Amino acid sequence: MARFFGEVPSSPMGATFGSRRELAAAGVHTPLMAGISGNGREGVDSIVVSGGYQDDQDYGHVILYTGHGGNDPATKRQVADQQITAPGNAGLVRSQLEGLPVRVIRGAGGDRAYSPPSGFRYDGLFRVEDHWSKIGRAGFRIWQFRLALLDGAPASGDLPNIQASGPVPRVATTVQRQVRSSAVIEQVKLWYQYRCQLCSELLAVATGPYAEGAHIRGLGRPHLGPDVPGNVLCLCPNDHVRFDNGAIYLLDDFTIVDALEGKKLGRLRLHHKHRIDLAHVRYHRETHAT
Amino acid sequence: MARFFGEVPSSPMGATFGSRRELAAAGVHTPLMAGISGNGREGVDSIVVSGGYQDDQDYGHVILYTGHGGNDPATKRQVADQQITAPGNAGLVRSQLEGLPVRVIRGAGGDRAYSPPSGFRYDGLFRVEDHWSKIGRAGFRIWQFRLALLDGAPASGDLPNIQASGPVPRVATTVQRQVRSSAVIEQVKLWYQYRCQLCSELLAVATGPYAEGAHIRGLGRPHLGPDVPGNVLCLCPNDHVRFDNGAIYLLDDFTIVDALEGKKLGRLRLHHKHRIDLAHVRYHRETHAT
Repeated sequence: MARFFGEVPSSPMGATFGSRRELAAAGVHTPLMAGISGNGREGVDSIVVSGGYQDDQDYGHVILYTGHGGNDPATKRQVADQQITAPGNAGLVRSQLEGLPVRVIRGAGGDRAYSPPSGFRYDGLFRVEDHWSKIGRAGFRIWQFRLALLDGAPASGDLPNIQASGPVPRVATTVQRQVRSSAVIEQVKLWYQYRCQLCSELLAVATGPYAEGAHIRGLGRPHLGPDVPGNVLCLCPNDHVRFDNGAIYLLDDFTIVDALEGKKLGRLRLHHKHRIDLAHVRYHRETHAT
Repeated sequence: MARFFGEVPSSPMGATFGSRRELAAAGVHTPLMAGISGNGREGVDSIVVSGGYQDDQDYGHVILYTGHGGNDPATKRQVADQQITAPGNAGLVRSQLEGLPVRVIRGAGGDRAYSPPSGFRYDGLFRVEDHWSKIGRAGFRIWQFRLALLDGAPASGDLPNIQASGPVPRVATTVQRQVRSSAVIEQVKLWYQYRCQLCSELLAVATGPYAEGAHIRGLGRPHLGPDVPGNVLCLCPNDHVRFDNGAIYLLDDFTIVDALEGKKLGRLRLHHKHRIDLAHVRYHRETHAT
């Protein structure tokens, strides 16, 4: 069964659970032992924050969460470096790169200000904003993740405000570009194993490959393009910017044209299952070619 | 004097003006004739929506706005194709690429549902979400821009919801990646004329070059990096993803290291005015190198 991302309808924000077994039975956090549910291929659907790592910091709507690994199973003490490629850690990076929502469950062992008095509580969907490593209090390398509460929450918004937790003045930055993801986009990326359909580049980061989905005919007014595989390309970020801004378009035979130089750049890479709708290719060409 | 982006303090949302001369005197929209204030190098700080183009569409919090050019000055009728490289049009693309806020002023000639009964009204800050061309009602090519109301407004949020205006279900997409901009980042980009400091690529789109600013030491907790030129790199989007995700780091002599292959990739490009703080370079290396 596919991993389930997002809120479990029968367990809204604030739902409480007496034990890990109850959490698992409700589908809110399915592993009985692990604090992180997920892996580097799929991403992470839920985590439990319960004070197991002394380097965790809980600010309510923002959590600095320590990854897994390097603990002695008997004493729970850190005895070795953590690896970013460990499944749960690579999974949290995947969630960051894809913008996937993570269910956060707080347990009674965590920070007193934000944790339930006993058992476990589902505290809403968070997004992974950042990850980094440092030497933890035990003297070994740990990986940490900044999670921020999403939409519908009192202290935050759909757009996590990075200024709110730092010394940068509120007016200092604006959103320059937003890249969106969807289940359809994920399907298209998997067909190409994240390789760019335009330039064939495989952009690799420490935990695996990265690509973006580009809608050929845009969503929203006035284009009203559909979110279906036939309207999506798997592109590297550079070619995504070019494709969206009139530097590249496609001919009906999927020849790639450099609109600025007026020359052909070869053919679009195509997976046999990927049936691109030519009506969208023509719409893009007519609306974006200069 | 530098172009002023954002709200003019003495003219909050809803402020009214009797004439274009009053708008100019208040600094809300300085040109007396042109509907677009700005150009492709700086971006656009304000526009006037007053029904001058029959292809405009006003939805209140979203406006489909037609660019300039191709009009007969005497009759105001479209007599030729518009060009995306015309100053105001290229300026709106720059505003889209940099996420710059645009002051929108509605005049009495616009859509009755949203326009003032007489004179002009400042209706808040919008962001440019998209641009495209089409054949306008007069039979010539026009360029159009989708603007959406920013933060603090009733019908929208800081994150324009593209689903709200299209047929795509609200849950279909999530934000995968957000690229932010600031005055400091713009300064650094200008030093390099948008050329990537890591790979030297100049990513060009139809209206000019594109680059992203990367904070070496991240903003926000726990890094608390400053938004100053010594903490910013000018990167292409691909290298920005690599730099933020452990695939690339820098040595103290600005040698670029491919962390995945463990090999040196040459030196960082450096402008003579760009004094990068080595403390931030070390922090990035220590927190991101795997």
